[in-house]
Amino acid sequence: MTTMSGEPPVGLIGRQDELEAALKSLVADRTLPLYRMMDYHMGWSETTGEARISAPPLRVHGALTLLACESLGGNFSDALPHASSVEYLYNHILIHDDVRDGNSERDRRASVWWSWGPAQAINTGDGMHALARLALFEARNSGVTSESVADAIRVLDEANLETCEGQYRDITLQERLDVGVDEYLSMCESQTGALLACAVQLGALASGESDDATATVSVSGALNVFGRKLGTAIRVADDCDLFWPNGERDETRQGRLVAKKKSLPVAHVIADGTPTDRRRIGEIYMERVIDPESAKTLVEILDAAGARKFSTDTITRLLDEAESALIGANLSAVAVQKLTEAARYLATPDGLASTDLVTDGGA
Amino acid sequence: MTTMSGEPPVGLIGRQDELEAALKSLVADRTLPLYRMMDYHMGWSETTGEARISAPPLRVHGALTLLACESLGGNFSDALPHASSVEYLYNHILIHDDVRDGNSERDRRASVWWSWGPAQAINTGDGMHALARLALFEARNSGVTSESVADAIRVLDEANLETCEGQYRDITLQERLDVGVDEYLSMCESQTGALLACAVQLGALASGESDDATATVSVSGALNVFGRKLGTAIRVADDCDLFWPNGERDETRQGRLVAKKKSLPVAHVIADGTPTDRRRIGEIYMERVIDPESAKTLVEILDAAGARKFSTDTITRLLDEAESALIGANLSAVAVQKLTEAARYLATPDGLASTDLVTDGGA
Repeated sequence: MTTMSGEPPVGLIGRQDELEAALKSLVADRTLPLYRMMDYHMGWSETTGEARISAPPLRVHGALTLLACESLGGNFSDALPHASSVEYLYNHILIHDDVRDGNSERDRRASVWWSWGPAQAINTGDGMHALARLALFEARNSGVTSESVADAIRVLDEANLETCEGQYRDITLQERLDVGVDEYLSMCESQTGALLACAVQLGALASGESDDATATVSVSGALNVFGRKLGTAIRVADDCDLFWPNGERDETRQGRLVAKKKSLPVAHVIADGTPTDRRRIGEIYMERVIDPESAKTLVEILDAAGARKFSTDTITRLLDEAESALIGANLSAVAVQKLTEAARYLATPDGLASTDLVTDGGA
Repeated sequence: MTTMSGEPPVGLIGRQDELEAALKSLVADRTLPLYRMMDYHMGWSETTGEARISAPPLRVHGALTLLACESLGGNFSDALPHASSVEYLYNHILIHDDVRDGNSERDRRASVWWSWGPAQAINTGDGMHALARLALFEARNSGVTSESVADAIRVLDEANLETCEGQYRDITLQERLDVGVDEYLSMCESQTGALLACAVQLGALASGESDDATATVSVSGALNVFGRKLGTAIRVADDCDLFWPNGERDETRQGRLVAKKKSLPVAHVIADGTPTDRRRIGEIYMERVIDPESAKTLVEILDAAGARKFSTDTITRLLDEAESALIGANLSAVAVQKLTEAARYLATPDGLASTDLVTDGGA
């Protein structure tokens, strides 16, 4: 079984309330309206400043940090600063994504830039970037060594820089049709996987895990692979959902299709399809935007060329590799099971729908 | 004497080559074209990638870090990672400033967003933000304790967040005419002073300074005040240069005037001028943009209302307070002299012209 659907695993959602409280505590005492734009983006308030009733999306990065910490035998509360840090870093990326891509919506509400303009949105994102790191100093205040905090910040900033590299490649690929399968997957790994890898590595750091000398890879190295494979699998699952949605394609997703976002199914047919299929896809992608009729034709070509099976096989392979990495580091069976269960859920349509991952910016 | 002009003090420019080499070393081995946009912004290459012949601007933040370190008896080379860090942080702000303000030029060349579009510019700025922190890990590699690196990162991120708060206030003030003198100066202190304060504090951290127990304030606290006063003085000096330039007002500065950037001279007359002066200024600022004829009238009103003297007196007061702070922390006479000399130079028209500070974004 490569995917499963339905309710999210407890390991993933069990600490969302505590995480939410930790995230809120970092801005609650800050009075400048700058922080109220952050509140809005995080889903805690309306543009008017009134409290919001709907629950925020599942915070995948923070949840994975807490899950990794607990799976490795740590106390989740030791990982709350780390979880807050990676979660704020991710949300800073989303705020900037929306400016860059001109997304008017985020999580079915007006995006920050749409509500307050690009200048405030860029600045709010930058402020959240600083906040992400200050979150980690909370750990230092509660007795974590400077050594460990410095390690965590380094992991965070290296992942951050790699995410920017992935963004750069994503922006650049938009202009090209001849994007190879490996090139596409490698971009996804940087743009989405690096930060998920960072999330689980931070959880391990917070747990104070020590390596099993008989393991072939270090725990940190294994979690790094796990997060990268997971991020890539999620991106491919999202690609599949774009072409073969459960039910109707909503406006946001239709917009991504129209805007010709790069995807694995198309990359596969461009690389390995028949000359006719490649030519027909080329013609569709030469259109300024893809109209609904062309979208239907495109999906037919992809189906006939086996792109759907190729993509779901890729997801299976990536998730299996993620699991193998954990096994190779001699993680306990329970840890492997919990982390793998979370990963497999996140790469399902239900998993995608419950999170703030790849909602529309493609990050 | 409150200001002096002419050649920059040796303490400020003496280590620019070493700083430049340290900055370059952080991106030199990174091959993705993302880093070539950073090279371009830093003034090392043309958009084509060819090496640039002109010298980059004086790196004020990094220079102050090195100067503070040496003035306190440290070895400047220990402060190179800190200087690189604050310098990259500042340049990340400039890249984002140019997107936010729609500046087509930076340091008399096309800005990054003008050359590569806003999406790449936002992302390049974010990447440079990550790089700023990774620079500090170079210090850790060369034997600096994790404690000290963590302290430095905290100083950096708190200054960073305050800069964003200043930016927020600056953006918000653009819509208002009734900006008080204190409100304006406080905004300048956050937006420009906080990061200069961070620069000198990082220099002190790198020097391993220890406090004199007989001093009324800590060295770090004194340097914090020094940097804040300096940043505010530089902003007011820049305001004066906008209304009373040496020679012709160039296109960029004319643009800032036309765009009705907030300034101390105007805030002073709005707060303390006669009803007639206030009404006349209000009428000019009601215009969509300020045309050259109105600009001339505006300067006449400001002159007659004593706004120029008020502003230069403010610069004098701020620079004196900066010096007093250093004396209060029992810094050596040589340290006080070197830092004060640098501060006084930076607040002159020549000083402003030699740097990358407030060139057009108002940051």
